[in-house]
Amino acid sequence: MTLDLTAPVEELAKALIDIPSVSGEEQEIAAQVESALREHAHLEVTRLGNSIVARTTLGRAERVVVAGHLDTVPIKGNVPGRWDDDGATLWGRGAVDMKAGVAVQLSLAAALTEPTRDVTWVFYDQEEVEETRNGLGRISRERPDLLEADFAVLGEPTGGVIEGGCNGTIRVDVVLPGKAAHSARSWKGVNAIHAAAPVLAALADYEAATVEVDGLSYREGLNAVGVRGGIAGNVVPDECAVTVNYRFAPDKTADEAIAHVSDVVARGGVGEHRIVVTDRAEGCRPGLDASLAQSFTAAVAATGVEPPRAKLGWTDVARFGALGIPAVNYGPGDPELAHADEERCPVSQIRDTRAGLEAWLTS
Amino acid sequence: MTLDLTAPVEELAKALIDIPSVSGEEQEIAAQVESALREHAHLEVTRLGNSIVARTTLGRAERVVVAGHLDTVPIKGNVPGRWDDDGATLWGRGAVDMKAGVAVQLSLAAALTEPTRDVTWVFYDQEEVEETRNGLGRISRERPDLLEADFAVLGEPTGGVIEGGCNGTIRVDVVLPGKAAHSARSWKGVNAIHAAAPVLAALADYEAATVEVDGLSYREGLNAVGVRGGIAGNVVPDECAVTVNYRFAPDKTADEAIAHVSDVVARGGVGEHRIVVTDRAEGCRPGLDASLAQSFTAAVAATGVEPPRAKLGWTDVARFGALGIPAVNYGPGDPELAHADEERCPVSQIRDTRAGLEAWLTS
Repeated sequence: MTLDLTAPVEELAKALIDIPSVSGEEQEIAAQVESALREHAHLEVTRLGNSIVARTTLGRAERVVVAGHLDTVPIKGNVPGRWDDDGATLWGRGAVDMKAGVAVQLSLAAALTEPTRDVTWVFYDQEEVEETRNGLGRISRERPDLLEADFAVLGEPTGGVIEGGCNGTIRVDVVLPGKAAHSARSWKGVNAIHAAAPVLAALADYEAATVEVDGLSYREGLNAVGVRGGIAGNVVPDECAVTVNYRFAPDKTADEAIAHVSDVVARGGVGEHRIVVTDRAEGCRPGLDASLAQSFTAAVAATGVEPPRAKLGWTDVARFGALGIPAVNYGPGDPELAHADEERCPVSQIRDTRAGLEAWLTS
Repeated sequence: MTLDLTAPVEELAKALIDIPSVSGEEQEIAAQVESALREHAHLEVTRLGNSIVARTTLGRAERVVVAGHLDTVPIKGNVPGRWDDDGATLWGRGAVDMKAGVAVQLSLAAALTEPTRDVTWVFYDQEEVEETRNGLGRISRERPDLLEADFAVLGEPTGGVIEGGCNGTIRVDVVLPGKAAHSARSWKGVNAIHAAAPVLAALADYEAATVEVDGLSYREGLNAVGVRGGIAGNVVPDECAVTVNYRFAPDKTADEAIAHVSDVVARGGVGEHRIVVTDRAEGCRPGLDASLAQSFTAAVAATGVEPPRAKLGWTDVARFGALGIPAVNYGPGDPELAHADEERCPVSQIRDTRAGLEAWLTS
C-alpha cells in the first residue's frame, strides 16, 4: 500500500489515520510518507530518523517552513478511522491531532510544483512524548540548515484560525531558608514558611500584563504553582520552597523573564540568590507584521474564519522562535478534541485549511 | 532475684537498669516492682496490666501522686549498667530516662511508712511509644480513682530542678480553596497558594506571649509547621493547606487555644470554617502557688538547685492536668541525655532528688 498524495485531502487524512503511529512507532508511516514524497521530482527529500524534510529549491526570494508531526497519542478503539454525517465528519485517532493537518501538508507538497515562495515541508516524529525525543527538536539540533526560513507554519489544530507565535514559560523555585527548632521552643529557630509570606503577597498583588507583539495580544500570567515546607508537626521548618511559573509574552527572552520574576520576588524582600531556575522555554513571535505573513493572513481570512489571535500555551512553534523564525499555528480541528476518544474533524475544515495555505503559496 | 528497695538508691537504680524493659516488654520489671512493693505492709498495691499503683492510706488531709514510667527506648549495648568516675556516675539505658527517678520513688515508697501527706506511687508502662499504649493514660481511663490527689510529681529527668506543669499544644490545618486552571490561562482559575499569603503574614506578624501561671512564666509559640499546595507545574492550584502548631500556656484550655488561632487566622481574612483541628493536647498548671507545693519547692531548694521553671514541652504531667490536678516534673538526670547511647546520671543528683522528695514528704 502506498499513500496517494493526489487523492482528495480528506481521503488522504483517513489513509493516514489508518496507519497506526503512536509515538515511538512511526517507522511505517514515516516510510510511506518518505516513499510518497520521493515520487515528486520537485522536492528534495531528506530523512532523519523517522522525520522527513521535503524542500522545493526554486531560488525564491523567501522560504517558509510548513511542519506537522506524524505521531499520535495511544489508540483507543478509534483506528481505523470512519466517516459520519454523510461523510461530513472524519473520526479517528489523529483526526484532530494532527493527521488532518499532515494530509493538508502532504497534499500541497505534491500539488504545488511551483509555489511563489520556496517551501520546506517537515513531517516529524515523537511530538506527544517527552521533549528530548521530539523529532523537530532533533532536526533543529542536528540539521538546523534544513529549517532555515523567513516564516513558519505549524499545522497543529486551531480550528482553522491563525494562532500566532506562543508565550514562553519559565519555572523557578524560590527557596526560603530558616533554622529548625522544636516548636515548643520556637524562638530558638527561624520559620522558613513564615518567610514565604511576603513572596506570596508579591505574587498575589502582581497584575499580569497583556503585551502586544507583532499585532497580537499576549496575556501573561505569574503564579505560584507549588509550595512545600515543613519537617514534622513539632518542628519549626528550616526550608520552604515556592514554585513559580511565569508565562511571558514573546517580546522578551527567557532570561528577561527570569530577571522579571527576580524583581517581583525582590518586592517580597527575597534576593535572586534564593531563586533556582528549574525550567525554561522561549516564546515565539508571530511575525504577522511582515509582508510575507500579511499575504498569509489575507489568504486565510478569505476562507471565512475569524482574525488571527495569540497562542497562549507553549507549542513547538517556539522551536522556530529559538532559530529566529517567526511562526504561527494553523490547522484543521477543534483543539479541545485533541487526545479525546471521540476525536473528529469536519471535512470542510480540512478543505478550508488546504485552500488557505494553497492560496497563500500560489499568490 | 528480687529488688532490694532498702539498698542505697543508686544501687537500686543500677538494679533497675539491669532488668531490660523496652516499651511493650515490661512484664519482668513490673513483676519485680510489684513483688518488692507488696513486701511493705503500709502500701496498698494495685496492678493494672504492667502498671503498678502503691498507696498509703493514712487518712492525711492531702494526697500527692508521685509517678514514673518503667519502660525505656531500645537498648544500644548499654545494659547492664556500669559505674564510672570511681562510682560517681551511673551509665546505662534508662540512667536518665528514667530508672534513676524510679529508684528514688521505689526507695521512698518503701522507706516512708508514715509520710506527712498520703502518697500514691505510680509505676507505669509504655511511655516511650504511641500515646494510645501509655500506661498512665490507661489508669486515668480505667481507674481514675487511683489517681485522685491534690498535687502530682512526675519523675521525668529535669536535672533535679522543678519544672512546673506544661504548655498545651494544638495543631490545625488552614485549608485555602482555589479553582484549578491551566497556568497558560491562569485568569480562568483562582490561586489557592496566593490565598495563603495573608495567613502566613498574620503568623509572621504574631508576637507570642509569655504568660505567668501559678508563679511560673510560660512562653508560647505559634508557628506554621507545614505548608503544601500545587497539582502540577502548569496548573493554577485549587488548594493550599497550612499546618499551624500553637503551644499555649496552661492558663487556657485547648478549646480556647483553638479559638485564639481562629482569631489570628481571621486577621488574614480566612474564616474559621477553613480550619480543621488535627491534634489537641491540654496543658497542665504547675499549682506552685498552693501551700502544699510551696513546702515542696522549699524542700527542693534546700538541695541547692536553681528555682522552679516552667516546662515548655508537653509531658505526661498533662494527664494530671486533665484530671484537674496541678503537677510538676522533677527527676534526676540531664534531659539532653535522654535516649542517648551515652545515657548517664551523676549519683549525687539521684541522692539529692531523693533527699528533696523525702524532706517534703516528712516535713
